[in-house]
Amino acid sequence: MTSHTPHALADHTPEGHVHHAAEGSRSVAGHAAAVVELLRPLLSMDRMETLPLSQALGRALVDDVAAPLSLPPFANSQMDGYAVRAGDLPDGGGDLRIMPPVPAGSSPEPLEPGTAAPIMTGAMIPAGADAVVPIEKAVPDHFLDPGNTAGDGSGATVRLPGTAPGTFVRFPGSDIAAGERALASGTCLGPAQLGLLAALGLPEVAVYKAVTVLLVTTGDEVVEPGLPLPPGKIYDSNGTLLEAAMKQAGLTVRRTGISTDTPSELQALLRTESPGADLIVTTGGVSKGAYEVVRQAMADQPVRFVHVAMQPGGPQGLGTFDGVPFLGFPGNPVSCLVSFEMFLRPALSALLGAPGRRLPLRARLDLGGPGRPLTSPGHKHQVRRGSLQPDGTVKLEGGESSHLMHALAGSNVLVHVPVGVTELADGDEVEVWML
Amino acid sequence: MTSHTPHALADHTPEGHVHHAAEGSRSVAGHAAAVVELLRPLLSMDRMETLPLSQALGRALVDDVAAPLSLPPFANSQMDGYAVRAGDLPDGGGDLRIMPPVPAGSSPEPLEPGTAAPIMTGAMIPAGADAVVPIEKAVPDHFLDPGNTAGDGSGATVRLPGTAPGTFVRFPGSDIAAGERALASGTCLGPAQLGLLAALGLPEVAVYKAVTVLLVTTGDEVVEPGLPLPPGKIYDSNGTLLEAAMKQAGLTVRRTGISTDTPSELQALLRTESPGADLIVTTGGVSKGAYEVVRQAMADQPVRFVHVAMQPGGPQGLGTFDGVPFLGFPGNPVSCLVSFEMFLRPALSALLGAPGRRLPLRARLDLGGPGRPLTSPGHKHQVRRGSLQPDGTVKLEGGESSHLMHALAGSNVLVHVPVGVTELADGDEVEVWML
Repeated sequence: MTSHTPHALADHTPEGHVHHAAEGSRSVAGHAAAVVELLRPLLSMDRMETLPLSQALGRALVDDVAAPLSLPPFANSQMDGYAVRAGDLPDGGGDLRIMPPVPAGSSPEPLEPGTAAPIMTGAMIPAGADAVVPIEKAVPDHFLDPGNTAGDGSGATVRLPGTAPGTFVRFPGSDIAAGERALASGTCLGPAQLGLLAALGLPEVAVYKAVTVLLVTTGDEVVEPGLPLPPGKIYDSNGTLLEAAMKQAGLTVRRTGISTDTPSELQALLRTESPGADLIVTTGGVSKGAYEVVRQAMADQPVRFVHVAMQPGGPQGLGTFDGVPFLGFPGNPVSCLVSFEMFLRPALSALLGAPGRRLPLRARLDLGGPGRPLTSPGHKHQVRRGSLQPDGTVKLEGGESSHLMHALAGSNVLVHVPVGVTELADGDEVEVWML
Repeated sequence: MTSHTPHALADHTPEGHVHHAAEGSRSVAGHAAAVVELLRPLLSMDRMETLPLSQALGRALVDDVAAPLSLPPFANSQMDGYAVRAGDLPDGGGDLRIMPPVPAGSSPEPLEPGTAAPIMTGAMIPAGADAVVPIEKAVPDHFLDPGNTAGDGSGATVRLPGTAPGTFVRFPGSDIAAGERALASGTCLGPAQLGLLAALGLPEVAVYKAVTVLLVTTGDEVVEPGLPLPPGKIYDSNGTLLEAAMKQAGLTVRRTGISTDTPSELQALLRTESPGADLIVTTGGVSKGAYEVVRQAMADQPVRFVHVAMQPGGPQGLGTFDGVPFLGFPGNPVSCLVSFEMFLRPALSALLGAPGRRLPLRARLDLGGPGRPLTSPGHKHQVRRGSLQPDGTVKLEGGESSHLMHALAGSNVLVHVPVGVTELADGDEVEVWML
């Protein structure tokens, strides 16, 4: 379905001039750029589709959308009241003869001089009228025969105060003029953006297809939740965690069972399951241990295993497996989520516009007082988990260790400690990303 | 399906002692409390279901979840390296005989004094061992025969530095101990919370059912997107906008076509479509105009039409229609979204835990310089739309008028100007809610 470019990596890894043995080493920015290049084929033409608005939530616009009409399309009333010619009302006000009412949705007759037309919010301003007096300021302050268009009170008079031209009139194009760009290509479609497309009369929209990920957790030590837990083993949380994070980001997720640590079995699993997937993501087996199943299964593929200067989530794999883009995340759950949030999610945001970017915010660290600094290895970008408080401070949740799922579940932000920073004190400012 | 309590309103509207004519008036907090009471029947027992983790994203926990096991379940290694008895290594280090390796997932033999066992990240610490030396600090600094458990290098010696007991050991229960509360009832299940449940070995979870909303837009002036637009009419954006906002919040949305402004037709539509719905939401027809179809259609129902001291979104309807909870939102799109964000969404968050609450943040207004203050009617809570910048300031998007869909589509926060505030200057601090 997609056109893969397995050579893209070599062109774009900034550290490409460094000599590599089995292990490369790169910055967070360098690896992030490499992931973008790996996924660039997702921009291909055959990954577009046209969807009705009700099915396009969370997708991204392929093209700019120009407004086919102005909003509002015509001058209309901002209030329930009387449409008038402002010049008919001296500063002290005056009495005007009441005309038939103008409901919203009608196409009214021109307003004759010396008259006032009851007009409802959103109804078209009659030709000749140039202002609206709210019903509350009229005497009497209610419509004479509400809800009855036959005997509608017309012919009686109403006392109205002096009013400036333009008062309570919404002018055509005051929100957006026909021909202007309403939304830019790559905009992620949330409720307001979809509402705008509807207001412009557009019933469907061209968006990128959802990205399909084949998600494979590996490890002889992991067991599916619900099964008995033998000694030395743990339950697989990576699969559930990443599936949910990917679904939340709008991806279509296909999961296999847990792969063993036998390379040939993982290879067979990937060959069976990867057709039709846009991306393979594995967890575990990418580090420097003695049993690294993903490294071993990828030995004959154009895949690099690198160490990113990041904590957690340093060991990463990247390349293609039988031509399908491949990312190998580490095996600890916090490392998996950090890998997703630092590399895969931003790459999709940058390329396709969906999911939308995590908004970076500045927040002051609340470390519970002085004397308990946050420490970080200066040569790595540390990603801690925290909870942003309504007062704008951020508290750390759990320590730096990458196995702390309970602490992760109490967090709502990632806390960034960049390269070069070794210690932060209570009250210091950090960048956080809202999860 | 649900047990409706039509009398709940009367018990809980703080302004109940005020004399009402056709119109009540109430504070934002008062109306918010009334919406909570209207929806309290959603907490009934028959609205619970048990789902596999992969289907529970965005749902809320019915009960507290206690950890059935500790995390980690057993002492394990934080690094690839050698498991040792720290007492075997004097300060200057020493040579230890290499034992067979301990892969993750295995249940190792006890470690004899004077030996070191190669151990992989996550693998169980052998009985007797109390520390791990990372492979990088060993001489040689790589495993002797990686990936081969038969001829595994055991019997040779490795030189290791002095190491304190506990180094690079993850102790059982250091994330959470068995029996502790892992998650509280009402927790909204995101990736991290679902990952935690998986780590605890729980394959399914008891959650509240999705709330089903019947969404009806009304008005003779509104036309479905994609159809021709006669003079005086506008396209319906409320339906698309609210459907998307509700889906994003995890609701199941059932939409009817646009209702006319004829009360008997709206009544017939609601009687046909509402069975099985947990809630009816209408847009438009709740104000003081002459043609207010929702007011008229609800004349014989226990429904109140009130004016909330809020701008936009002041006119609101609340009650039951044939026993089904009912909310009547105003007709302008921005008013609809503000009504949803101020009343319906927080009520669901408060009652069910899902959707999660909007995080309130403090931000400084960037009004583009002095001399252009934000103004607000002092007797109303004004809700403006804005975009929160990475530097923590917020810019307003569009004016206060409730028809500005294009400006709404450029916003990422709601900006709150509380009752009693009539003017805010550049640099003043406001509360914002992330959309």
